[in-house]
Amino acid sequence: MSELKIDTRLWSSKARNLSPYTPGEQPQHDNLCKLNTNENPFPPSPKVGEAIAKVLERQADDLRLYPAPESDELRNALAGLYNLDVNQVFVGNGSDEVLALVFASFFLKERPVLAPDISYSFYPVYAHTFGIELVQIALDADFSISPDAYRQPCSGIIIANPNAPTGLLLSLADISKLASEHSNSVIVIDEAYIDFAQIEADSSDATVSAISLINDYDNILVTQTFSKSRSLAGLRVGMAFGNASLIEALTRMKNSFNSYPLDKLAQAGATASVLDVEYFEQTRQQVIDLRESLTADLIALDYKVLPSHANFVFVRPKEGNASAVASALREQGIIVRHFDKPRINEYLRITVGTAEQNERLINALTTLRAMSI
Amino acid sequence: MSELKIDTRLWSSKARNLSPYTPGEQPQHDNLCKLNTNENPFPPSPKVGEAIAKVLERQADDLRLYPAPESDELRNALAGLYNLDVNQVFVGNGSDEVLALVFASFFLKERPVLAPDISYSFYPVYAHTFGIELVQIALDADFSISPDAYRQPCSGIIIANPNAPTGLLLSLADISKLASEHSNSVIVIDEAYIDFAQIEADSSDATVSAISLINDYDNILVTQTFSKSRSLAGLRVGMAFGNASLIEALTRMKNSFNSYPLDKLAQAGATASVLDVEYFEQTRQQVIDLRESLTADLIALDYKVLPSHANFVFVRPKEGNASAVASALREQGIIVRHFDKPRINEYLRITVGTAEQNERLINALTTLRAMSI
Repeated sequence: MSELKIDTRLWSSKARNLSPYTPGEQPQHDNLCKLNTNENPFPPSPKVGEAIAKVLERQADDLRLYPAPESDELRNALAGLYNLDVNQVFVGNGSDEVLALVFASFFLKERPVLAPDISYSFYPVYAHTFGIELVQIALDADFSISPDAYRQPCSGIIIANPNAPTGLLLSLADISKLASEHSNSVIVIDEAYIDFAQIEADSSDATVSAISLINDYDNILVTQTFSKSRSLAGLRVGMAFGNASLIEALTRMKNSFNSYPLDKLAQAGATASVLDVEYFEQTRQQVIDLRESLTADLIALDYKVLPSHANFVFVRPKEGNASAVASALREQGIIVRHFDKPRINEYLRITVGTAEQNERLINALTTLRAMSI
Repeated sequence: MSELKIDTRLWSSKARNLSPYTPGEQPQHDNLCKLNTNENPFPPSPKVGEAIAKVLERQADDLRLYPAPESDELRNALAGLYNLDVNQVFVGNGSDEVLALVFASFFLKERPVLAPDISYSFYPVYAHTFGIELVQIALDADFSISPDAYRQPCSGIIIANPNAPTGLLLSLADISKLASEHSNSVIVIDEAYIDFAQIEADSSDATVSAISLINDYDNILVTQTFSKSRSLAGLRVGMAFGNASLIEALTRMKNSFNSYPLDKLAQAGATASVLDVEYFEQTRQQVIDLRESLTADLIALDYKVLPSHANFVFVRPKEGNASAVASALREQGIIVRHFDKPRINEYLRITVGTAEQNERLINALTTLRAMSI
């Protein structure tokens, strides 16, 4: 394809100055071992396909009608799952859309928003899009987050928990501390990977999700996604949980951009996923188990592996160069993520695959090690 | 439900000052004659359900993977349909999302955007959301649009064509004139209803769509939707056509908000709809025919009916009060749209239904007329 010459004459200055997000690549080859975008190795609940097929069978005709604009059935299912009121639940077209609405609703103020310097790389994009100053707070040397480092005036704080790409978990005590110390700012906990987190043996908490805090703190908003633990990245559904007044702001913002972000099939499929609790518990435990054995295998290969609470591991080859390892793996059809960024350019983020995929990865790394790559 | 007390303390000033769009109601009763939101009375092409079922059968597992972020297959199908290059085609989560991105990409400038005073009521909402000044240009007394009235400095112009709720059509000659006279502004032609337009017998044009102008004018952007002529309001797919540089701006803006707005099922279903040209041509002609007979019936009942190029008619009872007619119809389970706005509060917008629905409407209006409502 010849290079297109872009003429920006008619663009707004906002359009000219954008720094769009670059999603991880989605190559479509056969026999590819795709461990680069943290998709779930297991298929979604079979109830999802059944629910969508039922929409098609019983009421394909109804695709001609607009969907429920506020996705009431889905929101009710989520409220039931987490024992919340339906007005504490918001859903959107993937958690990326939800996060965009969050930035516009809560962070668009004169003070900056705070986020870890190493985190989800869409946060700086949203800040740039909406003209919000983002102050990046350095992770500690061991990549952990210290609430004390966030003691400065801000419009809000956004933290991925578990953090990406590190996989490390912040405790509910630390989240409570942030919320208490910033009572006039919204603390957004982006829990894209929370369902893969494990409660530490010495913890007194019964859960690791900050959803358990939203009735105590009116300034905590939790976002989650169907793309990881529910194996539905292809369906584009994300959600937010918080005080009803925070949810109302998101609803108004949504209805000022796009009233009907979730189509009928996505609403039906996502609802079926929420209701199939057994399948969900089973597959997320399987992913956790696979992560633990992958971690052990990587440690045996002399990799440094951060203790992960997500469906990926963040690893550093003891010898050899992360970028070279990524390239060598790619030649064998195994795609992992390397970030060419300060502090983490010696690491690789590797999605937990099926047992077969993980074995293929370990075999490839074993060979590379023998070749001193 | 008890009234929720909203606390806006943590909201951004943008969130506090929003004026969200209010979609037409979507009541879910049986035996309702829903003629209020311009949905197509016919189901979508059977190929749509087949294509979605095929995704579920062959690759339900693949719902775990992210969809193609730029919906390449769908964009290629649309490019083929209209004989365009794929880089002249953009798709989004309904034309409402596409229009939001249009406002941010092209109208966010120091000069105001111009739009007719009577048009799609989401335009002022977008302008308000993005802090863009909107100058509303009065329609002529007969509700037509005069390009001469738009001769003033502006960031851009947005015109629904056919216009809603009037159903009137602007000619390609007038659109060319606007584009020529405003060569440094983007002229957006929102063709949500264009597929129901009829080429006048005395016209030399082979089409009424401004897509035919985009190779001649680098400042014309055309938006369309799958929600009306393709009977897919429930699937949420909209599109834009224009010069590749305009499309590039929309793509960057999308990737600064939400990278994957179209789920896999919506992409597959929409693509199948585009490829089923025969079904599309058949049903749109049926809607046009139904509109013409509904128009004749309404005229016979002494209604003033504007010449419609859409799948609705905009009508005025010769005697009696439009609002009272709408209320009386609602009591009989027939929902039509009444806008309580200056200039048009004596009109009703009525969606063209099936032959049976139109008959039920005409019977009801005949009874009302006998009762002098």
